[in-house]
Amino acid sequence: MELYDVPEAENLTVGNLGESGLLARILPRLRGAEPLLGPGDDAAMIAAPGGAFVITVDTLVENQDFRLHWPSGFESSGFDVGWKSAAQNLSDVNAMGAYATAAVISLTLPHSTPVSWVEELAEGFSAAVRELGASNCSIAGGDLGRGSEVSVTAAVTGALATGKPILRSGAKPGDVVAVNGVLGVAAAGLALLDSTLPSADWTQAEADIAQGQRRPKPPLHAGPEAARAGATAMMDLSDGLLKDGQRMAAASGAHMCFERNALLNDIERLEPIASVLGGDPLRWVLAGGEDHGLLATFPSDAALPPGFRPVGFVLALEIGESNPRVYLDGLMQSTSTGYDHFEG
Amino acid sequence: MELYDVPEAENLTVGNLGESGLLARILPRLRGAEPLLGPGDDAAMIAAPGGAFVITVDTLVENQDFRLHWPSGFESSGFDVGWKSAAQNLSDVNAMGAYATAAVISLTLPHSTPVSWVEELAEGFSAAVRELGASNCSIAGGDLGRGSEVSVTAAVTGALATGKPILRSGAKPGDVVAVNGVLGVAAAGLALLDSTLPSADWTQAEADIAQGQRRPKPPLHAGPEAARAGATAMMDLSDGLLKDGQRMAAASGAHMCFERNALLNDIERLEPIASVLGGDPLRWVLAGGEDHGLLATFPSDAALPPGFRPVGFVLALEIGESNPRVYLDGLMQSTSTGYDHFEG
Repeated sequence: MELYDVPEAENLTVGNLGESGLLARILPRLRGAEPLLGPGDDAAMIAAPGGAFVITVDTLVENQDFRLHWPSGFESSGFDVGWKSAAQNLSDVNAMGAYATAAVISLTLPHSTPVSWVEELAEGFSAAVRELGASNCSIAGGDLGRGSEVSVTAAVTGALATGKPILRSGAKPGDVVAVNGVLGVAAAGLALLDSTLPSADWTQAEADIAQGQRRPKPPLHAGPEAARAGATAMMDLSDGLLKDGQRMAAASGAHMCFERNALLNDIERLEPIASVLGGDPLRWVLAGGEDHGLLATFPSDAALPPGFRPVGFVLALEIGESNPRVYLDGLMQSTSTGYDHFEG
Repeated sequence: MELYDVPEAENLTVGNLGESGLLARILPRLRGAEPLLGPGDDAAMIAAPGGAFVITVDTLVENQDFRLHWPSGFESSGFDVGWKSAAQNLSDVNAMGAYATAAVISLTLPHSTPVSWVEELAEGFSAAVRELGASNCSIAGGDLGRGSEVSVTAAVTGALATGKPILRSGAKPGDVVAVNGVLGVAAAGLALLDSTLPSADWTQAEADIAQGQRRPKPPLHAGPEAARAGATAMMDLSDGLLKDGQRMAAASGAHMCFERNALLNDIERLEPIASVLGGDPLRWVLAGGEDHGLLATFPSDAALPPGFRPVGFVLALEIGESNPRVYLDGLMQSTSTGYDHFEG
């Protein structure tokens, strides 16, 4: 009954409630046929006459999810935005242990959008599909409309490599925790793009790190390979190792324990850019989002498939313990901070 | 070489080019795996391990595709917008001869959006899925993000009732042209909502017509039934009988001939509201969009499935004739006008 602190129900806005609060209001109201797997994983799973498939959707809005002009002077291209839209959605399908079968795109564009920018966007989306290896993915058309800001929505469907999805909820005590793909590079790239270090003066190594933010490279074959290798749980690393680890811990009802020593290469890779920008490489590795690698767990006796490296283990809750947590070298980590679309 | 009339290529904007011109620039740049059926029909068709499926996507943007406040004083609800988003996408799947299997929704919302409005939107989307009879359609989740205007994107997948899609291009000379669903009601409803006739004073009949604009009712079982009954061509009536008829004519390489006598009931239904508003009921029936009924062609000896009524026939081009057209009672109709997202 803390009604004093919140607006009256009828005046409540999206900004008051935040993303997870809003989702909690929406989801119970979405009532159609029962999906095989509903919201809560990286993609939903749907029954269909020929067999189940997965589907995901994601929108990028100008100045919210992407920026065209950066403090560093860097100008993001339509190509970057198209790439990112494809990569995000393909990564969600990958994380289910599936390969993409189709993408549809809906573009909302202001009158003044340069045609060349839209052409680049289409090229960037296609390049990501091709270069990331989504060789079964058709880009099957979409929708065009007008609006006051650029908005790019893609929906992607996928076929499950083993017929069964790999969920966030399957991690078992004793399992090895493994990751595939870079950690913290997209966050370091964001810090660089956001810095006052003029992009014209960047070294090649610095430009590569910015590219990690602009054009993330989800390891697309790794999701199906992990499924075949017996992964017990899997998810896309979109919001950082700790936050995504906390989600997997909560879904699986077990603690996720990471070891700093297993992340040394990731930390070292970011030390040069951290010293230039005054950033913390460990924080980028642990809390940086948008890398779109994979976090997965495997039985301790399974051989990790190529590209996966062990970073920790799954620990059972103690008797009477009810809150699954994330640990680093045995110390409980805070995962309460993180990006919320409707905050700030 | 009419470069004097158009901006230099590098300065060309979306507004200069219009919707179809922009599409012509985008489509060749979308290169992934080859879909079984790409852009050009109401939905795309995709090969998948268990069998082909169809997929479509559609975005509604505030003040472009829907309005919340009308000159008549009517206030559209989130329920209406959710209903419309579902109905449009379900209709595209229906028009392929398919039934919907899954919907995913992506919402972009300003900070100030009332939570109750978003709840209503979810209720309206679900109500359309249920009440229109999409009983196999899961609403499988989606995406939430922030933007400066409300934008609702839905992607819907479908399973083909006969395993084969019904295309726009299959109409054969001698076929019967038939429609299913209302004609012109959504356009009359738009005129009423846009009028200065205060919504508080509307009769029940007038409120029903406004409802036809706010909550269109695509005949969802009719698409699969038409496929089973041997329809040769089919499409969603989203932009009006003449304009959509012209598209079917062009895709099929034959003339589409409509008969005014077959439309008398449709015209009569709109006469009361036309006399109140000073509108032209024939024009609404022929050129009004957003009814989301079906336009289909059947072999002349086929029994039309329930709900379909004959409105004309398909005529072969004459020798040497190269432009398929739309006729009404033997008179060629102009179909050059119509809604363009990037005009005006």
